[in-house]
Amino acid sequence: MRDETHDPARASWVEGAAGHPDFALQNLPYGVFSAGDAPRVGVAIGDHIADLATLEAAGLVRPDPDRTVFDAAALNPFMALGPPAWLATRRALSRLLGGEDGRLKDDPALAARALVPAARARLHMPFAVAEYTDFYASREHATNVGTMFRGADHALPANWLHIPIGYNGRASTVVVSGTDIVRPMGQLKGARDRAPRFAPCERLDFELEVGAVVGVPSAMGTRLTTAEADAAIFGYVLLNDWSARDIQVWEYVPLGPFQAKAFATSISPWVVTAAALEPFRVAPPERAVPLLGYLVEETPNNLDLSLTVDLAPAGGAARTVSRTNARGLYFSAAQQLAHHSACGCAMRVGDLLGSGTVSGPEAGSWGSLLELGWNGTTPVPLADGTTRAFLEDGDTLTLRGWCEREGAVRIGFGAVGGTVLPARP
Amino acid sequence: MRDETHDPARASWVEGAAGHPDFALQNLPYGVFSAGDAPRVGVAIGDHIADLATLEAAGLVRPDPDRTVFDAAALNPFMALGPPAWLATRRALSRLLGGEDGRLKDDPALAARALVPAARARLHMPFAVAEYTDFYASREHATNVGTMFRGADHALPANWLHIPIGYNGRASTVVVSGTDIVRPMGQLKGARDRAPRFAPCERLDFELEVGAVVGVPSAMGTRLTTAEADAAIFGYVLLNDWSARDIQVWEYVPLGPFQAKAFATSISPWVVTAAALEPFRVAPPERAVPLLGYLVEETPNNLDLSLTVDLAPAGGAARTVSRTNARGLYFSAAQQLAHHSACGCAMRVGDLLGSGTVSGPEAGSWGSLLELGWNGTTPVPLADGTTRAFLEDGDTLTLRGWCEREGAVRIGFGAVGGTVLPARP
Repeated sequence: MRDETHDPARASWVEGAAGHPDFALQNLPYGVFSAGDAPRVGVAIGDHIADLATLEAAGLVRPDPDRTVFDAAALNPFMALGPPAWLATRRALSRLLGGEDGRLKDDPALAARALVPAARARLHMPFAVAEYTDFYASREHATNVGTMFRGADHALPANWLHIPIGYNGRASTVVVSGTDIVRPMGQLKGARDRAPRFAPCERLDFELEVGAVVGVPSAMGTRLTTAEADAAIFGYVLLNDWSARDIQVWEYVPLGPFQAKAFATSISPWVVTAAALEPFRVAPPERAVPLLGYLVEETPNNLDLSLTVDLAPAGGAARTVSRTNARGLYFSAAQQLAHHSACGCAMRVGDLLGSGTVSGPEAGSWGSLLELGWNGTTPVPLADGTTRAFLEDGDTLTLRGWCEREGAVRIGFGAVGGTVLPARP
Repeated sequence: MRDETHDPARASWVEGAAGHPDFALQNLPYGVFSAGDAPRVGVAIGDHIADLATLEAAGLVRPDPDRTVFDAAALNPFMALGPPAWLATRRALSRLLGGEDGRLKDDPALAARALVPAARARLHMPFAVAEYTDFYASREHATNVGTMFRGADHALPANWLHIPIGYNGRASTVVVSGTDIVRPMGQLKGARDRAPRFAPCERLDFELEVGAVVGVPSAMGTRLTTAEADAAIFGYVLLNDWSARDIQVWEYVPLGPFQAKAFATSISPWVVTAAALEPFRVAPPERAVPLLGYLVEETPNNLDLSLTVDLAPAGGAARTVSRTNARGLYFSAAQQLAHHSACGCAMRVGDLLGSGTVSGPEAGSWGSLLELGWNGTTPVPLADGTTRAFLEDGDTLTLRGWCEREGAVRIGFGAVGGTVLPARP
């Protein structure tokens, strides 16, 4: 069946939506917002938010005949209804906001209530993060970091080309864009120090990532194929995996990153659905070694997703310090999720899977200051003439992402931003 | 104020409770059970379970005046009420089951409804695990494992004496005692193999641990002192951190254990409260190096907790393969929790902190087959004449724990058991 929700000839009647760089009719990303009222689920359309709780109460969308799901402060109840409900809702919203279904367009009183100017809304965490797992899927990133710390000859760990390497992160500190990031305290020990000290992080960094949101649970003992894993992904967000490099280097042997990553992870407020991203699927890079069967993909599951990182000092103008694309990631979110479940690990609605830092092959396409400044040796110039080896208090970091190609309408993720506040010693 | 809940001269009127090796009046551990009805909270007393939902409905305990908390299928709502409610409830239950408050003892109809024979009840997960973190607090365990894999000269990682080393585990596969454990599949690669294969784990192991249950949340950006952390711990469970050693050795560099630990973690059904364990606090081992200030303790926070591991082959008798004690752990749960929050990581009601494998100084006091069989070189004899380098299908593992000392009533944890089922290739 041809999917009209992607038809580039269609546009929304909502003012300003046609030609919107992020949120045209073909996108319809889900988020949670409030505008004086209790938080509820909405869909971004141009510079407005369609209030789905209002549309649900009016009977214009009704994913679950037995109960309401859009008056919740999280997407989880809607996600839990599963892929058929996701698809039916996308189609219904596309027709309502496209005008083929006139029940919203032709009801000015309802439209006035249900279309909230985004400028008047506050955006909240879009979903309750069940658990957060962070992967390491960029071969260029892993090679850069490995070269810095182990030398070029042993840059990639022996397992890296075989396993979508990942570790469990901390879900309680995943926060929505706009949340200030307090510089963490932690144990620091320089190579020449005899003992560690407890002090504010001196090597604060960001990591540019894409987060996949799991919408279909799997029972303990169940292994997902890559096709099942792909179908279980509800959507994607931009993700900044804030990192304390000095805490990390002292703590991470032998059990991996812990406090270096646990103080904050920021995500964008809009979950762009996998359905909206269908036109932007691309094949992964060529395989350096054959993959084990459980990781082989039947469809192109990578995303042609352009990404930028802007860095602005306190009170100063932003400069774009990285431009890259997620299409080159060696492992897709579907492969990561299949691997995650390979031992029988139960997956849950609301699990968040970070892609790992997205770095491309050229210096300007790397996704962390660690790489852009090559471990502090080549600080990055900012717009105000200062440079950054690592983040300073007052710095504001903004990640942006979008998909575009000939013959398709551009799909934007919006942005995820955060400002660094001083430590609290 | 003298705490009568520990008074060894007091005993319960409930038949079989006085002198019970685990669940005398001084213990009062919380769990979730069902007996034909919906799961609800109960307290173990002798061979019975006091149905707290029934006592709450009858007005005999009422931790929250505004709503009921014991008719839930998890301890989380009760834990969320905080330490004053925990203490008041412990005192109220102690007086009801001790007989000083006669409203249960003297009401045979109510007592018949509220006291359920444990043999008739099914035990469920006692609380919803918010997040699960696993530590590595036994110096003997870390030294044993380090000696095996890095040699005796570099056994302890450089950070180990300074940091309560831990990593985030997977909460979705924490299961209650009695849950069968399916042997996981995973990537295996021997030292001489050119490439990994995807196959059933061949080196399945257990880890004897104690789990601390967090009952007081802390906001993102907040650091807990060791005293605050100690006060935030609601109670403790026995914990078996099932481990796939062959998956682990191939996957864990550089980001730590992932699939090797994600297939299952078993806990005991009864949460023994920190309050019940007060008489068994002991000082930690002498410090090899000074601790940083945020880890210094003002009270003795270690537990004098005896532990055993029984291993039974399919259809065969069990043999105790390890006898040890948690008192020698280098870092306490309070120190682990203080460290966990040190970067500003938000902690939640229901967070579970595994102590790490409890190993003592002698060979028979080690808490994993990896150590007891010294990486497969000295297999452990079982009661049926066979030996175990690692666990085989059909093996049943049972951990037990109890506290006892002169002048105090013995407090038992009961047991946590699980049987290994064949892999599902």
